[in-house]
Amino acid sequence: MRTHYCGELRSLHIGETVTINGWVDRRRDHGGVIFLDLRDRSGTVQIVSDPQRTPDSYESANALRNEYVVEITGTVTQRPEESLNTRIPTGEVEIYAQKIQVLSAVRKQLPFQVSTADTENVREDLRLKYRYLDLRRDRMAKNMQLRHQVVKAIRRFLEDQEGFIEVETPILTRSTPEGARDYILPSRVSAGEWFALPQSPQLFKQLLMVSGFDRYYQIARCFRDEDLRADRQPEFTQLDMEMSFMSQDEIFELNERLVAHIFKTVKGIDLPIPLPRLTYADAMERYGSDKPDTRYALELVNVSDMMKDSGFKVFREAVANGGIVKILPIPNGNDVISNVRIKPGGDLFKEASEAGAKGLAYIRVRDDGEIDTIGAIKDNLTEAQKQEILRRTGAKPGHLLLFGAADVNTVNKSLDRLRQAIARELKLIDPEKINLLWVTEFPMFEWNAEEKRLDALHHPFTAPHPDDMDDLKTARAQAYDLVYNGFEMLSGSLRIYQPELQQRVFETIGISPEEAYNKFGFLLEAFEYGVPPHGGLGYGLDRLVMLLAGEESIRDVIAFPKTQQARCLLTDAPSGVDAKQLKELHVASTYKPKV
Amino acid sequence: MRTHYCGELRSLHIGETVTINGWVDRRRDHGGVIFLDLRDRSGTVQIVSDPQRTPDSYESANALRNEYVVEITGTVTQRPEESLNTRIPTGEVEIYAQKIQVLSAVRKQLPFQVSTADTENVREDLRLKYRYLDLRRDRMAKNMQLRHQVVKAIRRFLEDQEGFIEVETPILTRSTPEGARDYILPSRVSAGEWFALPQSPQLFKQLLMVSGFDRYYQIARCFRDEDLRADRQPEFTQLDMEMSFMSQDEIFELNERLVAHIFKTVKGIDLPIPLPRLTYADAMERYGSDKPDTRYALELVNVSDMMKDSGFKVFREAVANGGIVKILPIPNGNDVISNVRIKPGGDLFKEASEAGAKGLAYIRVRDDGEIDTIGAIKDNLTEAQKQEILRRTGAKPGHLLLFGAADVNTVNKSLDRLRQAIARELKLIDPEKINLLWVTEFPMFEWNAEEKRLDALHHPFTAPHPDDMDDLKTARAQAYDLVYNGFEMLSGSLRIYQPELQQRVFETIGISPEEAYNKFGFLLEAFEYGVPPHGGLGYGLDRLVMLLAGEESIRDVIAFPKTQQARCLLTDAPSGVDAKQLKELHVASTYKPKV
Repeated sequence: MRTHYCGELRSLHIGETVTINGWVDRRRDHGGVIFLDLRDRSGTVQIVSDPQRTPDSYESANALRNEYVVEITGTVTQRPEESLNTRIPTGEVEIYAQKIQVLSAVRKQLPFQVSTADTENVREDLRLKYRYLDLRRDRMAKNMQLRHQVVKAIRRFLEDQEGFIEVETPILTRSTPEGARDYILPSRVSAGEWFALPQSPQLFKQLLMVSGFDRYYQIARCFRDEDLRADRQPEFTQLDMEMSFMSQDEIFELNERLVAHIFKTVKGIDLPIPLPRLTYADAMERYGSDKPDTRYALELVNVSDMMKDSGFKVFREAVANGGIVKILPIPNGNDVISNVRIKPGGDLFKEASEAGAKGLAYIRVRDDGEIDTIGAIKDNLTEAQKQEILRRTGAKPGHLLLFGAADVNTVNKSLDRLRQAIARELKLIDPEKINLLWVTEFPMFEWNAEEKRLDALHHPFTAPHPDDMDDLKTARAQAYDLVYNGFEMLSGSLRIYQPELQQRVFETIGISPEEAYNKFGFLLEAFEYGVPPHGGLGYGLDRLVMLLAGEESIRDVIAFPKTQQARCLLTDAPSGVDAKQLKELHVASTYKPKV
Repeated sequence: MRTHYCGELRSLHIGETVTINGWVDRRRDHGGVIFLDLRDRSGTVQIVSDPQRTPDSYESANALRNEYVVEITGTVTQRPEESLNTRIPTGEVEIYAQKIQVLSAVRKQLPFQVSTADTENVREDLRLKYRYLDLRRDRMAKNMQLRHQVVKAIRRFLEDQEGFIEVETPILTRSTPEGARDYILPSRVSAGEWFALPQSPQLFKQLLMVSGFDRYYQIARCFRDEDLRADRQPEFTQLDMEMSFMSQDEIFELNERLVAHIFKTVKGIDLPIPLPRLTYADAMERYGSDKPDTRYALELVNVSDMMKDSGFKVFREAVANGGIVKILPIPNGNDVISNVRIKPGGDLFKEASEAGAKGLAYIRVRDDGEIDTIGAIKDNLTEAQKQEILRRTGAKPGHLLLFGAADVNTVNKSLDRLRQAIARELKLIDPEKINLLWVTEFPMFEWNAEEKRLDALHHPFTAPHPDDMDDLKTARAQAYDLVYNGFEMLSGSLRIYQPELQQRVFETIGISPEEAYNKFGFLLEAFEYGVPPHGGLGYGLDRLVMLLAGEESIRDVIAFPKTQQARCLLTDAPSGVDAKQLKELHVASTYKPKV
């Protein structure tokens, strides 16, 4: 039986007889002497077998191939001077193998190399199908360890320093009011009825506050049957928290310490706190986004006030129709961005038009401070306006100014996309930089153009801003996100705990008392028995780990993820089921495969 | 904002002005002076308001009712000598309330009292419907805290002392080979196909061993759509573990230390380890059960060898038909158990017959050592046989000997039930005693009489005992349970890692290579790429916490459990869904409500 892990052997073990287990990471034959790197989860160590010195193991050693699982007993030996390896922690020693026992052979061609030395870029579908091999690779093994460390750091902080209690909430439950599509499953016992998988533990954690738990957390699995978007998973993991009797500032402060603790523990980084805050209104104004990446500047400049009487029809009408005109100023943009790229057919035009923009006006600032653009714009700018544009944008010779002119959403969305694309292209993003900021005061509601009514932006239990109680329709909410390098890392809010106010919110979004009772009656009733002021939030754990790992897809920090088509390539789930099973569940498939 | 929790106020705070939040646990009016117990999760503290000393708070205090949520600011004061309360940690102080703010009133009649002083036995359906109130009660709040402490102790031990990594495995997956019915849900994206919820992470944790993770654990939610039995939940929580390169003894040793750590941490109890072991065969022979409660004796005595030629037909034929005759000896049983209770219609007869027994023979040992029973038995016992029975059972005058005579299963099952019922009645169980033992060497297979074939007792990946390889049909498995006061607390096994052996096991239970490939192909294929010897286990976490809490139902240690009809009385899940939703999922309900 194993006496040591491979990666822990050092000079101090020299002379000891050890037994180790693991996978053959690499096998080399140097003139009749066999060298093996034996790998377990702790690292690798070099094994030696030669016909003279270790005759009993030589035949076995010779027959080994990569990824065989073996048990090796041998003597820890000082490596000769010329073969010391300073790149690995075990590089001062090697093990002369007295005995090698094959525990499991490899019987098939490996679909890809898994050695720790290997960094080959393997097709993702192959990696997912053979996930058990992919997880052997250094990168994935490290990502899984990092994920574990992050969760561990979170738990320790919340439990040991902040007195949170972890409570498990149901997976088989009712719909939650999160907005996305629910996964549902038929009940066998209650014929004709269905369970829903939770999109979050929202209702249960609010009930736990009603119960007096004061500070709750859970590493919670959540489920959304969403239309397939890049980097979403049907099931994902949330650090879910809810707290009673705390102000928004106190919630921020606690979470800043939590985030700082995570960075310190898993990355050794001292994060300066408190973190900066930006209102939703400011974020939209300056970056066109509620999750701005502020590692680089490229701030948007609003010139709507100047353009409302412009002779250039596109600008004038945008403002007249309630829209805006904004500029994305790009320092030295003239050098790198040609007119072709901005005009129809160009990549930047495409970027903007995918966000709904009809065109992409521009101004180039030349060496003498002169403005270079199409006649229709140039001819309609007074000298004072030119100077004002240069002043507001801070533009210097070489600057390219890209214009968005349309309704607010389209301008913000298109300039946000351009801002990000150009930052990437111009390498304005320092990958070492950690950019965390609060975005606060989200609006309560957004307009649902399709159904011609207001929707809750967060969820209908979000508390309005105390200054905006008079007109809920346009009210800001006590809702906040924490943004990490341009990704939403957490989202939360204070909750409504006053029945009358809750009633007003339901009215505002057109939920009748009957509908509210049917959907959330148990929560509303709970609030009749003494409810504390409370608020909470959820962190997207997969995304947090992804960012900490420097990965670009959450699939790379989930052990067994699904594809964007919501399939598991390893187990081939989902799959067909027996007719008998469906009958027991009182359901039938209505799907008719096309022949 | 809150400066202190209620339960933390002590003499050292005297003179301080504090602000506390919580629920009015009790309100008393003593001749115009209002006393409140204010409760938060940390405990209670006494608040005082009187018209002279605290005129500003008096009106508010007077209007408060039980379970109002308030914020109180006041001065911590020494209680007068005569009202010191040594039963609560805050009993030396009281707070004179300068200001009382009602944060939330109670607007309905409480369905039951929730004060910490209250221990009223409330109907379970009411408790489940108003779970948020039930969770305020001392008992449930403590159970949830205990559960949290148990999970915390487990995590700390496995992570800090044993190097386990926690890995999350999918909830949306394929069927696992656990035997019970799966919960399944339709895929919207892959029309006509279904996901299954896992009965355990079995296949994934074995894959993680193939990946080299070495030591895995997870607090894992598991799902079984079982027929409704006492104290089962559709979803339950398992401490799931899997380990590579470890022998069964090493697995036992590690888990004994884990269990000892749990007892020490949450109960302050030093558990003596190693724990006793009993083979499955011995457990069945001596207790008629594979999860014997050995806090009391009442061991069964096999007398089949003596009865094979008995003149008493029932005994003789039982043995002739391959069955057994066993005795449950009950010291002083004559005093407490009348013939009426043993004969048809009696409660003990009923207990035995519910386990399939046709009758319940008995012998009473009288003062002079004489045997008192029905003629048919007495007349057919020789003096030597009488003496042998007395010798084997150790029976003394006053002993009642109950006989089981039938097939092995029926005898064991009926005498096990009688043994437990009588131990309870005779109060042979010391509730303070902690009885933990390993049951080892479970059989590989059990006979499925319905389908006339062998079934895997544990699951088909369980490794046979190395001494029993020649004939798998009757082989013992390297499978084990840990039994705690008569409950199965964990169950596990070493796994097969040799493809040829796995093939033989599939053949033994009639699984064709095609069927094996369809069901577990990905696992079998994974084993072709180098698999370590591995084994693992799962703890029933709900049950473990139940036993530690001294509760009798796992519902009392789950925050939001379902009823035995698999319903949530709080949210009323499962429920109906929109026809539109079913259409999107390509399914239809076939349930026709009876009119």
